[in-house]
Amino acid sequence: MPKLSYKAATMPASPIRKLAPFAEQAKARGIKVFHLNIGQPDIETPEVALKAIHDIKQRIFAYTHSAGRESYKIKLSKYYQNLGLDVSSNDLLITTGGSEAIVFAMLACLNNEDEVIIPEPFYANYNGFAVEVGAKIVPIVSSIDNDFALPEIADIESKITDKTKAIIICNPNNPTGYLYSLKELEELNQLVIKHDIFLIVDEVYREFCYDGNIHHSALKLKGGEQNIIVIDSVSKRYSMCGVRLGTIITKNIDILDAALRMGQARLCPPLLAQIAGEAALDTPQSYFDQVYNEYIERRNVTINALNKIEGVYSPMPKGAFYSIVKLPIKSADHFAKWLLEEFSYNGATVMLAPASGFYATEGLGANEVRIAYVLNKEDLIDAVKCIEAALVEYKALVD
Amino acid sequence: MPKLSYKAATMPASPIRKLAPFAEQAKARGIKVFHLNIGQPDIETPEVALKAIHDIKQRIFAYTHSAGRESYKIKLSKYYQNLGLDVSSNDLLITTGGSEAIVFAMLACLNNEDEVIIPEPFYANYNGFAVEVGAKIVPIVSSIDNDFALPEIADIESKITDKTKAIIICNPNNPTGYLYSLKELEELNQLVIKHDIFLIVDEVYREFCYDGNIHHSALKLKGGEQNIIVIDSVSKRYSMCGVRLGTIITKNIDILDAALRMGQARLCPPLLAQIAGEAALDTPQSYFDQVYNEYIERRNVTINALNKIEGVYSPMPKGAFYSIVKLPIKSADHFAKWLLEEFSYNGATVMLAPASGFYATEGLGANEVRIAYVLNKEDLIDAVKCIEAALVEYKALVD
Repeated sequence: MPKLSYKAATMPASPIRKLAPFAEQAKARGIKVFHLNIGQPDIETPEVALKAIHDIKQRIFAYTHSAGRESYKIKLSKYYQNLGLDVSSNDLLITTGGSEAIVFAMLACLNNEDEVIIPEPFYANYNGFAVEVGAKIVPIVSSIDNDFALPEIADIESKITDKTKAIIICNPNNPTGYLYSLKELEELNQLVIKHDIFLIVDEVYREFCYDGNIHHSALKLKGGEQNIIVIDSVSKRYSMCGVRLGTIITKNIDILDAALRMGQARLCPPLLAQIAGEAALDTPQSYFDQVYNEYIERRNVTINALNKIEGVYSPMPKGAFYSIVKLPIKSADHFAKWLLEEFSYNGATVMLAPASGFYATEGLGANEVRIAYVLNKEDLIDAVKCIEAALVEYKALVD
Repeated sequence: MPKLSYKAATMPASPIRKLAPFAEQAKARGIKVFHLNIGQPDIETPEVALKAIHDIKQRIFAYTHSAGRESYKIKLSKYYQNLGLDVSSNDLLITTGGSEAIVFAMLACLNNEDEVIIPEPFYANYNGFAVEVGAKIVPIVSSIDNDFALPEIADIESKITDKTKAIIICNPNNPTGYLYSLKELEELNQLVIKHDIFLIVDEVYREFCYDGNIHHSALKLKGGEQNIIVIDSVSKRYSMCGVRLGTIITKNIDILDAALRMGQARLCPPLLAQIAGEAALDTPQSYFDQVYNEYIERRNVTINALNKIEGVYSPMPKGAFYSIVKLPIKSADHFAKWLLEEFSYNGATVMLAPASGFYATEGLGANEVRIAYVLNKEDLIDAVKCIEAALVEYKALVD
C-alpha cells in the first residue's frame, strides 16, 4: 500500500472536532450536549441575505471572476471605507472563506520551512494551514495571567531569524477574546518594517468588540502598507459561516497578483456565497445592535458565572465570542472527554475544546479550555452549572 | 519591501484567463468575442437545483460537517452505485469544487519535491496546484498524431523514480477530449500497484462521452483500490460551475482520514452548494439527454468545420467538451492575442486558449490551441468562420 505524504501524516485533527464522536455517543444515550466547543452562532443570517438567495435570478450557476464578482468587490470596498479605511476594490480579492485567504497569504509569504511567528494560544487551524504550506509556526507565549495581551515586542523580536517571513495575529483574538491596542499594533507595524517581513492580521471578528473598546484595523497603520495583509470573512459578521466567503486585503500589489494566480487555479469563490455576501452588506444597523446586545449578555452571564466557580479563571473577553478558561484540573483533554463519556447533570453535559490544541508549545494550556459563548443565555447558564457540578465530581474522582 | 515566496513567484497565471484583459478591450471597441477559451457551459442548471436554492429553509447558513452533509454524502453514494460502482458514503468526502479535491489528493500523496507523472497536454491548473503543494509535475507527451491516447506504459514507467508518488490522468480528458480505454486504465492500475504509487483520476466529465463510447471509472479497477483516488465535481454534470462542489473518492481510509483533517482546517464545503448538489441528484434523465444531444451537435459542427480549414487538424473528441486543435501557425500565443487586439470579422473575433499553457515541456503545443465547444451552435459556426478568416489574414501578415 502506498505511503502517505509527510504532510498527510502531520496534518493535525481539529482540536474542536476530535471529541465529536463522543458527543454523538452521549446524544445517543439521551444526554443533551451543550456545545461550547465551536463558534457556530445560533444567530439568524440577516434577512437581506436570506432573501437574496430566495430571489436569485441566475438560471446558470456559472463561474465568477477568480477574484470575485466586481459588483461585490466594489460594494465590499465601501464597507471598509465606511469604517474609515482606505480600501478600494482593487485592494482586495474574494476568497472561499477566511480559511482560503489565510492559505493564500501564507503561500504568498512563506517558502517551504520558512517560519511564521504567532502568539499562542492561537486559532488552531493555523497549524493545519502551516502544514499544507510547508511552513513552520514559531509560537510566542501570551499568558492568561496577562489576559493574553501581546507579548513584549523585544520577546517577539528575539524569535525572528533568517527564516522568519511573517507574523500572524488574530484581532479580536480567537481563542482568547483579547483585543489588541493601537499601541500594540503600531509596535508590530514598526517591527515588521524593521525586519522587512509580513504582518498577517486576521480581523474576522472586527464587529465583536465590547465595553466601548474600539477595533483598530491593521489597515490604518502607516508605513507598513507593503507588509500588511488583512484577512476577513462574512462568517461571523452575518452569521453565515457555512457559505464560505472571505477576503484578502492588502496594498501590496505583488501579494494580490500572486493571490489572483492562486485564485485562478481554483477558478472562483462560491457564486451563491457572493450573492448572499453582497446582499448582506445592506444589513440594517438594528441587526448588529441586537447581536451585540445578545453577545454582551451572553459573555457576561457566562464569564461571571465561570469566575464564581472555585479555582476557575477566565479573563473578561474584550472581543470575539471566545474565552480561554483555566480550570482546577490537570488535563483538560481528559476532563473534556470524561464530560462526554461519563458525566451528566440534569440530563445534560458540555462539550469543551481543550486549549492544548491552540498552543504549539507542548504542555501549555493543559489545564485550560476554550469556550465559545454562542448559545442562548439559558443554555449558557445551564452549561456553566454543568461545568461546576462536573468539577466537583471530577475532583473526587481523580484525587 | 518584503520578498514574496518562491511559490508566489512561480505560481502560473491561468493560460485560459491571461488574455482576458485583451478580450475586455476588444469588447470595449464594440467587437463581439466568442469565448472558446473557457469551459463555462451556457446550459441551464437543472430546475431541481435552482428550486432547492429558491426554497431554502435554513434561517442560519451554518457550517456543515467538514466532510460534507451526511444526507448529501448518502445520496451521492447512490449516484455512484447506480453507475455500478462500489461506493458507500464512507468512501467519499465533499470538497469545495473538484479543485480542492485535487489539492487534497496531492497533499496527501506528495511530499515537497516529490514527482507526479501526468500525460501532457493536461488540465493547466494542475500546474498551479503542484506549485502550491511543492510537488513537481513530470510530463509524458501524448501526441495529437495519436489523438492523445495514453502514452506507452513502458514510456510512462521509464519516468518513474524514487521521487514518483503518483500518476494523474483526467478521463474524459480536458483539454484533449480523449477517453481512456479500459485496457489503458488496467495497464495504469497494474503499473501503480507494481510501483506502490497512487493513481489520481479526475472524472469530472464522466457524463460527457460520445458516439456510444463508454466511460470506465477507475473505481471499477480491481487490485489497486488502495492506490486509486477519484476526483469528481458537480460543475459540468449539472452546469453549476460556480457553486464550487466536488468530491474525493477512495477506498484508502488513510487518504480519506488525511483529507478529513485538511477539510477540518478549512471548516466545511459551501453549504448552499451542497443544497444545490443534493437536489441536482434528482435531475431527470431528459435533462442529460438534451445536454448530450446539444453537445454532440456542437462538437460535430465545430470539429468538422475546423477540419475543413486548410492546415487545421483536430481529433474528434470522444468525451468532455474540449479539443486541442493544431493550426497552420508558428505561435498560438501570438495568434490568440492578435485575434483580440487586431482582428475582427463581421464585427466579431474569437478568444482561444493557447495550448502551450497545457504542456509542461517548453515549446510543445506552440501551434495548438484548446477550444471549448460550450457555446450555442450558431455562435460556434460563426466562431469557426472567424478563425478561418483570421488564419488567411494572419498568414498574409506574418509570412
